[in-house]
Amino acid sequence: MIRLSLADPAFAARFDALVGARRESADDVSRDVAAILARVRDEGDAALIDLTGRFDRHDLDAGGWRIDPADCRAALDGLDRELRRALELAHARITAYHEKQRPADRDEVDAMGVRIGARWRPVDAAGLYVPGGRAAYPSSLLMNAVPARVAGVGRLAMVTPTPDGVVNPLVLAAAALVGIEEIWRVGGAQGVAALAYGTGRIAPVDVIVGPGNAWVAEAKRQLYGVVGIDMVAGPSEILVVADSGNDPDWIAADLLSQAEHDPTSQSILITDDAGFADRVAAAVDAQIPLLATAATARESWDRNGAIIVVPDLMAAVPLIDRLAAEHLELAVADPEPLFAAVRHAGSIFLGRHTPEAIGDYLGGPNHVLPTGRRARFASGLSVLDFMKRTSFLGCSPGALAALGPAAVALADAEGLPAHGRSVALRLDR
Amino acid sequence: MIRLSLADPAFAARFDALVGARRESADDVSRDVAAILARVRDEGDAALIDLTGRFDRHDLDAGGWRIDPADCRAALDGLDRELRRALELAHARITAYHEKQRPADRDEVDAMGVRIGARWRPVDAAGLYVPGGRAAYPSSLLMNAVPARVAGVGRLAMVTPTPDGVVNPLVLAAAALVGIEEIWRVGGAQGVAALAYGTGRIAPVDVIVGPGNAWVAEAKRQLYGVVGIDMVAGPSEILVVADSGNDPDWIAADLLSQAEHDPTSQSILITDDAGFADRVAAAVDAQIPLLATAATARESWDRNGAIIVVPDLMAAVPLIDRLAAEHLELAVADPEPLFAAVRHAGSIFLGRHTPEAIGDYLGGPNHVLPTGRRARFASGLSVLDFMKRTSFLGCSPGALAALGPAAVALADAEGLPAHGRSVALRLDR
Repeated sequence: MIRLSLADPAFAARFDALVGARRESADDVSRDVAAILARVRDEGDAALIDLTGRFDRHDLDAGGWRIDPADCRAALDGLDRELRRALELAHARITAYHEKQRPADRDEVDAMGVRIGARWRPVDAAGLYVPGGRAAYPSSLLMNAVPARVAGVGRLAMVTPTPDGVVNPLVLAAAALVGIEEIWRVGGAQGVAALAYGTGRIAPVDVIVGPGNAWVAEAKRQLYGVVGIDMVAGPSEILVVADSGNDPDWIAADLLSQAEHDPTSQSILITDDAGFADRVAAAVDAQIPLLATAATARESWDRNGAIIVVPDLMAAVPLIDRLAAEHLELAVADPEPLFAAVRHAGSIFLGRHTPEAIGDYLGGPNHVLPTGRRARFASGLSVLDFMKRTSFLGCSPGALAALGPAAVALADAEGLPAHGRSVALRLDR
Repeated sequence: MIRLSLADPAFAARFDALVGARRESADDVSRDVAAILARVRDEGDAALIDLTGRFDRHDLDAGGWRIDPADCRAALDGLDRELRRALELAHARITAYHEKQRPADRDEVDAMGVRIGARWRPVDAAGLYVPGGRAAYPSSLLMNAVPARVAGVGRLAMVTPTPDGVVNPLVLAAAALVGIEEIWRVGGAQGVAALAYGTGRIAPVDVIVGPGNAWVAEAKRQLYGVVGIDMVAGPSEILVVADSGNDPDWIAADLLSQAEHDPTSQSILITDDAGFADRVAAAVDAQIPLLATAATARESWDRNGAIIVVPDLMAAVPLIDRLAAEHLELAVADPEPLFAAVRHAGSIFLGRHTPEAIGDYLGGPNHVLPTGRRARFASGLSVLDFMKRTSFLGCSPGALAALGPAAVALADAEGLPAHGRSVALRLDR
């Protein structure tokens, strides 16, 4: 963990270093991923059998290509009652929030008599990547699948690795809750490739979403344009802006809720009280040993954690915008002035009683959010990622007569005579 | 040009071949582009000087780094009066259309007492690539720059190659009309890299849009995630659905308006009348020699053109959706049934009097549209490409008490104790 103070003459350089630090894996997997994508494109199912046997030690032909939806329903029925209710509450709240994201169509006739508008339609098919092992979270499945369902996507196909054939019952239960019936036991770059290109067994999809390791992320990056993808995801991060009126233990827990994800995660506190900063730092150290995730949280906090002291919290606004964090907590008595001033953040958590974890699970907004300062230009996952907009125009003869000469003039100026001709011929009648 | 008939027993296979044909350049420029991006990232302005001297034969230090906004205003003032009016009409109509794309914010309190919503903000800075030479179109500059302006983007930086120092006065005039003041004389992958990474002279931007050659497209693809980009653009295409009530000359002109762009462009006619198909094919052959762009149009039509005869036009709907064309003309007496049924197209042109060229210039909707069947999942350029959405949540102590236990249950199930702790600590009070 590093400590910075805005009062320090070296602050600008140290803050630049913090902003510019690369936490993303430097593994260069792009060549290996390209080779896997080409194999799946060319060899289809045979490549999936070979790669899944090799990487996941699962024999697709012998052990099964798909997970039976009945197994998902059984997993849902087998859940502890309190957990099932929690999952259902999450599902209901996420659905309700995303339903209000459905875009409106436009269809008007303008002053020149031109019918003009745009309409939205869902994609035909979406692919959902769900990681195996430790990072297989039911909440993540809900966050990725519900927007597709709300968009009205007809086909939702899920791929997930099942190392040694083992499935995660919580993930199956979440799949049952969303009603996903098509689940393939393939993962990694090969799973993404199967969704994008299609194979003999797996029909191709139009959009692929969902978290994964460096190979999965690189596969999606390389397939961007062949299909739509959600975004390039990097390590997770939280920025907590807190005044001294908070319980240091609460703020420490918030910082650790990000640190426990991964050693590359980042937790940053900005406060206007150096004494409060000390108390939070002490609380972090006190809480880490209590966590089952202590080793990860320790490594993340030591490597990437930061505490920044500013003279007053409004002075933090330019720093907040530079960091453009995935998650921004405004744990202050009145968050309104900061909330109004901040421009760049993936999602904002307002006030002392809104820990970021509420948003991870069941606040309602999506927890798939831009990382690595990408909140400067990117948004969280939404219903729009599963839809596309078609614009349209309709000219009456009169409207064409009004617009046509200008179009011909521009076509001539651009040296595109057939463009002009397609308009001019219609003006002669 | 190939001719297909839905009645042909071999139709399915021949149509599959048409849909699957790759028209995009097979040039593998990715390694060269990666090297250029790395050089600009590491060496900044020095790399720009070297590469611009080499590729554009323009000495940045001696001949100027920037185009003076006064030169742009002079170019606008020097325009032919009719052309200037046409450009102004285009600017006004494109602006009016995109102003209605501004998204609405949400800020509500739900039934559980949670404040919940989302708000949109423009990105800080957008970069606009404008090609040099033949493909430098003022209409394209308007289509790329106006949505950024409407979004409220504070800084708009343009890069454009000026081979041998030569500028295109029409493009300068369009830049003046949109009010672009920051124009750099750099192009190619190095121009895109300068916008993405920044150099000593050029400040980095958040989003890069605009058309370019294979190097520019590959540079944008590789920088996706470092910045936002508009989309992966391939060769242009038009699909015209026409009944025999049309003048064959009009439809031929529409097909040629796409074919004249580039030998890789594609023009397809679907009609329900084989005799009409013959007449359009004859009209295409008759019109090509009249065009200054005859050689390009001929090559495109011969290589990539297609005419498909169907028994009735509604039978064309699945074909239209498979092709998912950038531009779809419904040149029929009543376009409504087809318009209602079609799902995938970048932009639709309704009726006999709406040639696609109207949309290229001044219909209002954007002419930057998904190509290569990407209308299955992608949309045209819009104001949203220059904005990003931040979600937010605010819990009162009561709302947290209502939601908290479910969040704790889910965090426990996912094995993330600090997540649960950040909620549970606040429930104890």
